[in-house]
Amino acid sequence: MSLILAVNAGSSSLKISLFQRLPREPKTPRLLLSSSISSISSPPAKFTFNHASTTPCSAYSSSEPSIRDHESAFAHFLSRLKEDATIDHQEIQHTCHRVVHGGDYRDPVVISEQSYHHIEKLRDLAPLHNGAALSVIKTCLKTLPDALSVAFFDTAFHKNLPRYVSTYAIDQKIAKDRGLRKYGFHGLSCKPPPLYAFIKRVVAKHLHKEEDALNIIALHLGSGASACAIRAGQSIDTSMGLTPLSGLPGATRAGDIDASLIFHYTSESPSQLSHNPAIANQVHMTKAEEILNSQAGWKALTGTTDFGEITRKAQLSAPSSSTLDNPHTLAFQVVLDRVLHYVGAYHLALRGKVDALVFAGGVGERSEELRRAVGEAVNFFGYSAIDERINGVVDDIEGIVVDIGKYDGGKRMLVCRTDEQMEMARECSLAEEFWN
Amino acid sequence: MSLILAVNAGSSSLKISLFQRLPREPKTPRLLLSSSISSISSPPAKFTFNHASTTPCSAYSSSEPSIRDHESAFAHFLSRLKEDATIDHQEIQHTCHRVVHGGDYRDPVVISEQSYHHIEKLRDLAPLHNGAALSVIKTCLKTLPDALSVAFFDTAFHKNLPRYVSTYAIDQKIAKDRGLRKYGFHGLSCKPPPLYAFIKRVVAKHLHKEEDALNIIALHLGSGASACAIRAGQSIDTSMGLTPLSGLPGATRAGDIDASLIFHYTSESPSQLSHNPAIANQVHMTKAEEILNSQAGWKALTGTTDFGEITRKAQLSAPSSSTLDNPHTLAFQVVLDRVLHYVGAYHLALRGKVDALVFAGGVGERSEELRRAVGEAVNFFGYSAIDERINGVVDDIEGIVVDIGKYDGGKRMLVCRTDEQMEMARECSLAEEFWN
Repeated sequence: MSLILAVNAGSSSLKISLFQRLPREPKTPRLLLSSSISSISSPPAKFTFNHASTTPCSAYSSSEPSIRDHESAFAHFLSRLKEDATIDHQEIQHTCHRVVHGGDYRDPVVISEQSYHHIEKLRDLAPLHNGAALSVIKTCLKTLPDALSVAFFDTAFHKNLPRYVSTYAIDQKIAKDRGLRKYGFHGLSCKPPPLYAFIKRVVAKHLHKEEDALNIIALHLGSGASACAIRAGQSIDTSMGLTPLSGLPGATRAGDIDASLIFHYTSESPSQLSHNPAIANQVHMTKAEEILNSQAGWKALTGTTDFGEITRKAQLSAPSSSTLDNPHTLAFQVVLDRVLHYVGAYHLALRGKVDALVFAGGVGERSEELRRAVGEAVNFFGYSAIDERINGVVDDIEGIVVDIGKYDGGKRMLVCRTDEQMEMARECSLAEEFWN
Repeated sequence: MSLILAVNAGSSSLKISLFQRLPREPKTPRLLLSSSISSISSPPAKFTFNHASTTPCSAYSSSEPSIRDHESAFAHFLSRLKEDATIDHQEIQHTCHRVVHGGDYRDPVVISEQSYHHIEKLRDLAPLHNGAALSVIKTCLKTLPDALSVAFFDTAFHKNLPRYVSTYAIDQKIAKDRGLRKYGFHGLSCKPPPLYAFIKRVVAKHLHKEEDALNIIALHLGSGASACAIRAGQSIDTSMGLTPLSGLPGATRAGDIDASLIFHYTSESPSQLSHNPAIANQVHMTKAEEILNSQAGWKALTGTTDFGEITRKAQLSAPSSSTLDNPHTLAFQVVLDRVLHYVGAYHLALRGKVDALVFAGGVGERSEELRRAVGEAVNFFGYSAIDERINGVVDDIEGIVVDIGKYDGGKRMLVCRTDEQMEMARECSLAEEFWN
């Protein structure tokens, strides 16, 4: 058997899927099993292990106090795999790793000492992300020495952003020396790549269009959130920038803010801020990125990372100054406002030639309320009205892409369920050079 | 005579206009003379002094090495006024000062010890702006002790931003304690106020609409640039935020960037950035704001603050990777890209119910090329096509508001010439409580 292990390390989670490559059908690797480890940074971690052939309820699930970090999480998975008589982990030929920040890497990269070192340097551009992936890659190299490790990058899909989109209006020598430009994220992988690459591929298929003729606005709304304008199959703009910080707010991420804000936020002396050297206010990058990536977002507004809870507790009628006193209402409206900001901007960037507005990510898939509110706002742009009979039961509808718009001749409104591990395994399986 | 002195202190400039209030026509104070001092921070400063009744070419203009700061610039103006036999400066009853950051001040404020102190504290939210105004206010209080000094705030027009627009997704206790929210700028003054207030007033008149029924997207494009969505006469969103830094790039201002950028920009060690405490990278707020407000923008891209020069040297055909190697082309396209970003977002924020797209500010008034490029992009939204016979000769057309769109039934395309000193004097003249 030719096995592919696809590993997706989040800041506090690890998702692992094992696929079998079928040489006759390299486009559709077969899922054998999947495992997830969550709450790594707030132990005890939760561990699940599911054979694809068994039903979820028969799957193995446990609380694992021995898991303290990504390394021990991956080791735990491997030991579970070893105990599993049906899989010989010697047959794992490739491991695919999702790496958030690829810098100038445009395509997936086989991990060598040199490329590992290069990715390690990029850690600083995405401190909360590349770090976890790197520790798992390290463990993989040690424990699966015969497998080829391949890194797939979130930034790759945006590699052809127009230069006037990716350029910040700052000193260009410094920008070039330090790689300071808009990279964009949620792209993953290669030619063509996911998350947005996955969305592009399955939406093009759903709409019976060629991928390189597809124009969509994709909203990946989850605890990390971003938007992407895709024209003729290419990312022409996206909301995340140099790091995943900018753009849409997430569960604990501020999204777009005034770049001066952090200095005012961290000042020791709010009444006499800053510019007096005697009460100098210096901010450390780690502290700034920690606050803006991990202590902000809708959790900072409401106390919860659960957008479903926010929606249930919010008053969703037209916002007024009294309903906005409810922090859940405020958080919902803040997210809606920022999402619409990008939808309007990208609708113009695409000159209105949009095949579909696509919702993805945990919140995009599950929040019928947010989809409804976005749908009402963009209706005048010529998007289909949302079909409420479908919008309310998307969870019960099978398929990767679900139409939630009425067939009223408008631009399509879609929900897309994404699977990053599948996309990595697919790309890996399709790359002939890996299998000869 | 009842005289009103309107003072507008920029970071390196001072514009002063003297008006006479006519009790029978308080709405239209009469301009007596105007003076401008530029290049204050890069001496020798240039000084001009024009009587409104004389032609500009007969006006007094000189280079003044004695001017070193805003205080000496204002003193120089007063001494010139003293020498002028036709004006008795004892008759100056009010001085109006444009103050960029008004914090929670919603209306113009008569300067007292208390309000001066309060504005001084706000200096930290707009370090490059309030400082100059404060030093001129101080000089005024000393040298014109009988005149009432009134501060007009740029933030005032945006005082009713919806809370979900003005809220950043950050800890709300800290946000409240420190006043960390979107304020917006270029608003100036009171009820109703300029710059955007001025635009709103004159555009409503031009379109024969009630001010509180006017919906426009206003682009104030100059060395400081911002955009504003005005619905029913109210600012419902604007591109500047906590400080004037965010939003559109300006001559030396970065505009929207990833909030992490400054830490990477200033790092001592580009190859090994940051999160290792051993090579800790702390950034001082003053340095950060200096870099992002004064060492960035289109000057950082091209070396010049002159947008006209950039346009002349740019290749304005469809941008390609080779034409974008020309930094002037890149700068033009970066500005266009960011302007369109906000136009798209605000067109959606107004649900397409837009009476006019309004260009203002030095670049907005003078760059026919930028107007043409914006016009071509937004045409599909239902805006009038730009009439090139007019667009190329706007400078030669009299009037405060100029129609540059064809009369093709589309939404109007306008250029508006703004006059902040006039608007302050007008507000001051209209405020009955100041004149009894």
